[in-house]
Amino acid sequence: MNRTEYFSIKFENHKLIFLDQTKLPLEEVYVETDNYKRIAEAIERLEIRGAPLIGIAAAYALAISLKNVKTEIEKEFNNAFQRLASTRPTAVNLFSALNDLKNEFQKLKEKKSAYEVLLSKAIEIHKKDEEFCLKIGRNGLSLFKRKSNVLTHCNTGKLATGGIGTAFGIIKTAFDNALVNHVFADETRPLLQGLRLTAFELDRSGVPFTLQTDSSAAELMKQGKVDMVITGADRIALNGDSANKIGTYNLAILANYHKIPFYIAAPSTTIDRSIATGEEIIIEYRSGEELLTIGQNIISSSHFKAFTPAFDVTPGHLISGIVTEEGVFSFPYNFIR
Amino acid sequence: MNRTEYFSIKFENHKLIFLDQTKLPLEEVYVETDNYKRIAEAIERLEIRGAPLIGIAAAYALAISLKNVKTEIEKEFNNAFQRLASTRPTAVNLFSALNDLKNEFQKLKEKKSAYEVLLSKAIEIHKKDEEFCLKIGRNGLSLFKRKSNVLTHCNTGKLATGGIGTAFGIIKTAFDNALVNHVFADETRPLLQGLRLTAFELDRSGVPFTLQTDSSAAELMKQGKVDMVITGADRIALNGDSANKIGTYNLAILANYHKIPFYIAAPSTTIDRSIATGEEIIIEYRSGEELLTIGQNIISSSHFKAFTPAFDVTPGHLISGIVTEEGVFSFPYNFIR
Repeated sequence: MNRTEYFSIKFENHKLIFLDQTKLPLEEVYVETDNYKRIAEAIERLEIRGAPLIGIAAAYALAISLKNVKTEIEKEFNNAFQRLASTRPTAVNLFSALNDLKNEFQKLKEKKSAYEVLLSKAIEIHKKDEEFCLKIGRNGLSLFKRKSNVLTHCNTGKLATGGIGTAFGIIKTAFDNALVNHVFADETRPLLQGLRLTAFELDRSGVPFTLQTDSSAAELMKQGKVDMVITGADRIALNGDSANKIGTYNLAILANYHKIPFYIAAPSTTIDRSIATGEEIIIEYRSGEELLTIGQNIISSSHFKAFTPAFDVTPGHLISGIVTEEGVFSFPYNFIR
Repeated sequence: MNRTEYFSIKFENHKLIFLDQTKLPLEEVYVETDNYKRIAEAIERLEIRGAPLIGIAAAYALAISLKNVKTEIEKEFNNAFQRLASTRPTAVNLFSALNDLKNEFQKLKEKKSAYEVLLSKAIEIHKKDEEFCLKIGRNGLSLFKRKSNVLTHCNTGKLATGGIGTAFGIIKTAFDNALVNHVFADETRPLLQGLRLTAFELDRSGVPFTLQTDSSAAELMKQGKVDMVITGADRIALNGDSANKIGTYNLAILANYHKIPFYIAAPSTTIDRSIATGEEIIIEYRSGEELLTIGQNIISSSHFKAFTPAFDVTPGHLISGIVTEEGVFSFPYNFIR
């Protein structure tokens, strides 16, 4: 395999091939399956992760569940739907993708063609995400006034989406246009998406990069090594307040203190038009185990208490720009309901 | 053993007993030895760490090296001195302690009594550090206007000093005076001194506490859960600029943004009277391995580049107060040369 080639999921010959992200970056193992239960497992085990990617994989899985089914098609569909919906209870994209397929299924008079119909819907969801990523990447080019050093947090690349990524997509597009000098990637504790996944993607994309602990960002900025920060977002309120991986708000304050622009990149579907401000965003808390163990290795006593928000909310006034497939928006954000 | 009893080092019956900090918090193993080479190894392997504690342990070790030596005392002394001085090349306390003993040794006309003389000097160094810690703890009480939640970084307790600690000493003294409600401890990547060592000390001291990733501090402050931040320091310039564990400058900016007081605690010997500002402090860089592996476990490719400053420098204007055994100093810091 060429050093630059890798993918997170691919649908080929009526099978899904996915990269097992839990083994990255030390091993690059692709799994081929036409068993939807195996895909459900992969989502549960974080072999496949990243909100948009989970939705796409689940859509393919739901289609696949009917591939060889001739009788009791409706029952089989419902079983697969339930199984897939139970994998990650909080990922919005998962439910929206599954529901898109359910609508198609319910519209069908002749369920025998369900596999083909659901598959083309899954492909459509995948292609749409791919296209949004490309547009975000192109729109992000305007952030670069010169060849720049970029700091990013968590993972927002091919491994998280159906395309080139959001924040990562901008970095990659800018790099391909000779606008990126060097990328710094936060390790992103507790789950180390930066140290494991973003590092893998930067390495395979040939982008020069350096990893760091999350707490080194201030020193890095002080040394003048960061020209801009770009991260993704999980949910954006109408006023621009943005929820993203824990540590993003931290970075936004540091960037603000050092007068470094701080950008968010996300598809417009991430804007939650039902909420006016970030105060309405409920932060998910994860198990303390994620802090007290690394992989299978226990590093501190399991009875110790841990503060483990999965996300934080960055106020809109700390965000220099929000890049979506529709363009670059700037403060004050007044997204339309 | 009583739940509250633990110690980092103890000299008893002409032997040094030390707690192997590499096994904490999962195992509490004490090692008893009268072999200075074993102590040198312990310092190298980080079984004994924390700048003041290293100095004290090395002083005991140098004394011990002469315990059973009757001939070629000078040669033996020099061997032990060299061996101990080579353990951690950058720790200032190590050299100052070893040199204190060397002065005593050189003053001795009759080298046969060297063991007793060096031992009493080592005990003196230990006792002085213990006394400074107690005074820092008492001086720090004035920081508390009411029962407070304190955030700390890295480890500054018994496991780092010859006494109750510096920042940790203040927290413990304030807790004993019913002035501490809850302690939040940053895990302190890459070496996890907070998650492993401060957690152990808080647990054994009966202080209620919660651990968090370093990048969660901003969210914690935003939620109003932090009344003050207290950390230690490794080196302080005359204008108050303070070098401390990487992530401290990060915290100081976050505290400043959230209008939370940020304090430094350290013995006055930490003030480097030869430097005017923090710009003169040279930051030590550690091996990238510390980021890319945890314990024996490789978590990312060893060929990836890492930004690994061991320290950062917090400018004096972000520090609300510096507590030493002499009192509480506040900005603008004009320590006397």
